[in-house]
Amino acid sequence: MAAAATLLSNGDLTSVKSQNTGRFSSVYSEVQNSRLDHALPLPSVLRKPFQVADGPLSSAAGNPDEIKKLFPCLFGQPSAVLVPGDARNAGQSLKVGVVLSGGQAPGGHNVISGIFDYLQDRCKGSTLYGFRGGPAGIMKGKYVVLNSEYIYPYRNQGGFDMICSGRDKIETPEQFKQAEETALKLDLDGLVVIGGDDSNTNACLLAENFRSKNMKTRVIGCPKTIDGDLKCKEVPTSFGFDTACKIYAEMIGNVMVDARSTGKYYHFVRLMGRAASHITLECALQTHPNITLIGEEVAAKKQTLKNVTDYIADIITKRAELGYNYGVILIPEGLIDFIPEVQQLIAELNEILAHEVVDEAGIWKQKLNPQSLQLFELLPAAIQEQLMLERDPHGNVQVAKIETEKMLIQMVETELEHRRQAGSYKGQFKGQSHFFGYEGRCGLPSNFDSTYCYALGYAAGALLQSGKTGLISSVGNLAAPVEEWTVGGTALTSLMDVERRHGKFKPVIKKAMVELEGAPFKKFASLREEWALNNRYISPGPIQFVGPASDKVNHTLLLELGAQT
Amino acid sequence: MAAAATLLSNGDLTSVKSQNTGRFSSVYSEVQNSRLDHALPLPSVLRKPFQVADGPLSSAAGNPDEIKKLFPCLFGQPSAVLVPGDARNAGQSLKVGVVLSGGQAPGGHNVISGIFDYLQDRCKGSTLYGFRGGPAGIMKGKYVVLNSEYIYPYRNQGGFDMICSGRDKIETPEQFKQAEETALKLDLDGLVVIGGDDSNTNACLLAENFRSKNMKTRVIGCPKTIDGDLKCKEVPTSFGFDTACKIYAEMIGNVMVDARSTGKYYHFVRLMGRAASHITLECALQTHPNITLIGEEVAAKKQTLKNVTDYIADIITKRAELGYNYGVILIPEGLIDFIPEVQQLIAELNEILAHEVVDEAGIWKQKLNPQSLQLFELLPAAIQEQLMLERDPHGNVQVAKIETEKMLIQMVETELEHRRQAGSYKGQFKGQSHFFGYEGRCGLPSNFDSTYCYALGYAAGALLQSGKTGLISSVGNLAAPVEEWTVGGTALTSLMDVERRHGKFKPVIKKAMVELEGAPFKKFASLREEWALNNRYISPGPIQFVGPASDKVNHTLLLELGAQT
Repeated sequence: MAAAATLLSNGDLTSVKSQNTGRFSSVYSEVQNSRLDHALPLPSVLRKPFQVADGPLSSAAGNPDEIKKLFPCLFGQPSAVLVPGDARNAGQSLKVGVVLSGGQAPGGHNVISGIFDYLQDRCKGSTLYGFRGGPAGIMKGKYVVLNSEYIYPYRNQGGFDMICSGRDKIETPEQFKQAEETALKLDLDGLVVIGGDDSNTNACLLAENFRSKNMKTRVIGCPKTIDGDLKCKEVPTSFGFDTACKIYAEMIGNVMVDARSTGKYYHFVRLMGRAASHITLECALQTHPNITLIGEEVAAKKQTLKNVTDYIADIITKRAELGYNYGVILIPEGLIDFIPEVQQLIAELNEILAHEVVDEAGIWKQKLNPQSLQLFELLPAAIQEQLMLERDPHGNVQVAKIETEKMLIQMVETELEHRRQAGSYKGQFKGQSHFFGYEGRCGLPSNFDSTYCYALGYAAGALLQSGKTGLISSVGNLAAPVEEWTVGGTALTSLMDVERRHGKFKPVIKKAMVELEGAPFKKFASLREEWALNNRYISPGPIQFVGPASDKVNHTLLLELGAQT
Repeated sequence: MAAAATLLSNGDLTSVKSQNTGRFSSVYSEVQNSRLDHALPLPSVLRKPFQVADGPLSSAAGNPDEIKKLFPCLFGQPSAVLVPGDARNAGQSLKVGVVLSGGQAPGGHNVISGIFDYLQDRCKGSTLYGFRGGPAGIMKGKYVVLNSEYIYPYRNQGGFDMICSGRDKIETPEQFKQAEETALKLDLDGLVVIGGDDSNTNACLLAENFRSKNMKTRVIGCPKTIDGDLKCKEVPTSFGFDTACKIYAEMIGNVMVDARSTGKYYHFVRLMGRAASHITLECALQTHPNITLIGEEVAAKKQTLKNVTDYIADIITKRAELGYNYGVILIPEGLIDFIPEVQQLIAELNEILAHEVVDEAGIWKQKLNPQSLQLFELLPAAIQEQLMLERDPHGNVQVAKIETEKMLIQMVETELEHRRQAGSYKGQFKGQSHFFGYEGRCGLPSNFDSTYCYALGYAAGALLQSGKTGLISSVGNLAAPVEEWTVGGTALTSLMDVERRHGKFKPVIKKAMVELEGAPFKKFASLREEWALNNRYISPGPIQFVGPASDKVNHTLLLELGAQT
């Protein structure tokens, strides 16, 4: 690898000198190296002269009147579609900033590469600033100037370490002021915000703010999250979901082959996805586990923890009768957030622990309402203890820290023991717990994510150049060959609804949940009984970057696009 | 995939009808499918007419007099080398059994494919019996007849599910009798035992037993274990190690990129390898973590748990001064077995808990010797509790259940807090724990393991045909192109020493530990300081099956062969 091994140093507003440095690490693996020069195809509309046409005017996902009040300048603006033609503003150089916001997702570096290449190809003399460490980098004016030597080592590579990310938000009037100052000092024509639902909401607020101040700085969002819960008709998927699911599915497939070979373990696999269960659903479609829990279904059916435990125990019992004392169970990390009674118990515990003395004899438990008490007593001792002892800085129970897969193993074990005593279960049960999380966020992006991200970035450049603001970069028709992909931008306000918080309306892009009437869930639901009792395991194997297996796209996307049945 | 989705049913001695069935699962992923017809190159000596030549006479790894007493028929026999020439016994059909013994390792199916293809190619009309569920299958006479339709779906696939494995041993006179009966009833010319050190010792005992009874059944072993601790000069590596390390290294590399992108977590990664730390060392050479613990070094330096904790805390402190509050730490799962004081504490606890009342006030602790008491008090409360409460069926502390990575996170956290109070540490520390285990045992075998296993199996067939017994299949010169690999068999007795158990000498193949003077450790030791403070992370990425990156062999093997520096 040619890049120098010099450490990155911060740019700041008093020193805008380009940091002509490379990735921290000076040594790449053969696979990393092989990806550096992997050529990325562009949709044909981006390869030829194009112009940006307006689509129909837009509204909001809900409460358009409130959204209009919150975004008086931007509300209702049309979406944009790139069509063949002569580009307006061609040749004009731009000053553009880019920021990564929130958790990592494979492909982020390619979005930046796409923006950079667009500026190189179509707006000679442009400058791309990378704000460092997330939105805080905008507020503090910390950035690096991105040039081709700087970007090269990150092409088609995982992680967000080119400029790193952060979870700060630009929220208060002071923070908006700081952002304005940075935009003015750097004379920014545009800013690309790469992030999830919150970050794109923030991007739209920034766009509105700049527009209301008559500043020239336009803001374009890009849909990023491995959780797959930022999507809509125009934005068929968020980047990173494809790669992360494939990495998790590789591990699940391996564990399945292990389960079948050993014949004596039930593997309880917790997967990322606190708010929505898309990752779990996609991994199920890729691997065919015996049991899959989908949070949205648990919530819709108002299931209790006992219901969930019984469901698992029922299948294990039936499998034991068939001679199978092994299996694989997928669990979304947010599962218990979907169970109403658990929420109720936690609310009561937070109240009690804030105001009451917790006595060893357990008299405090009388303060719980009967249903919550029953649930509490059902929980394994270790989980009870965790609920009582581990609090966040506000004194609240740390639900996120509960290892759901271990809790379920214990509860299923207890239930099966009851059944054994009642004579209705004669199998052997040994649970093994797994959490697949960090492994999937920073893998080398799949060919799909590499190409999709590059197109998203390239499109963001085109939207900025054409003067657009408050749009999210939108690349569609993804089931078709890349050359036929559509490119445009969708009004961020059209994705928004409001939520009332502390008596005020706040704009939010609603997370896209697993739709129980959607094609991915329906396909899963039609097959899960077959998977439960028979062993239809599929081992997807490691992501391949060359050969026919390298171009496979995830099931969720293909099913939602109607390109798979 | 053409194979039928019928369930396997057991063969037994009253019904030797071939089970013409396929793998349980009827659906394969594209990557699995692409591997089915992956052509396996053979060493050139196996592609042409060959004959088996004798090497020099052999001795034992230790106590040759005792080994001679234990193996009067087999002791001292020469190793075998395949050389070009006209095969003796060519064309004679054979009846051969094969068994998988112990934990899974990627490539086991290819050993069986190699044996099968050898019999097809060179001994037309032969029959291959697959004993089901490990050595118990030999004793109980449970088997399937393996034909090409049966074997095809398992070619180049992970897992051991073709015939499954088991951990039973053939030990007692009755069990040897059962094995003899099976061999006689099936008229077996040979048996191939695919297993680790214990299973190969067992294979040699079986070979000795059959020979002493003047039975025609020969026994050949094959070196299997992901742990990499079954190897010697003639057997440069055990199969499965290459693939398992690459899978773990993929995950470690992803976590490294995540650590660098997020900048706020120390990832403590526990890896498989209870007896030896080869996996941890190999993964370190592949990925360049900040800290790597090697059990053999900890033992050689007689380090205490406090020493280990301080070592980690020292590096974290220095990194904090450089502005790095993140890192990756690799830990072999057997770490605490290497720490003498921990063994002492556990021995004392086992004694105390068997005979004393454990009082809540902790007066029982006075029974501990002072050093053990000090260590006990150093341990995190959760680990103390685990040591006191979780016992195996014999009432002993379950050392294997201790989650070493979580224990170390807590101990390091406490140490850093002391340093913070003393003013010598000003960083932020957040630990994240990982255990990479089952994910690596059943992955699709790498090209190296696929080819190596196929050659091991093919060679085992050749050794059996030439009348050899008590040898372990040996494929060498592995750093050269496959056509130049050497093929032969090594006298199992030559790998053996004795251990005294219950007053009797028992033969053992000594586990190959990490040699502190060996090339892999020395290379690691020469680089670890550089890796500790600078970030030299390498992300190996997912195993590739085509392209230049697909033919890379693990560092440990190449360094030991002198083919890498």
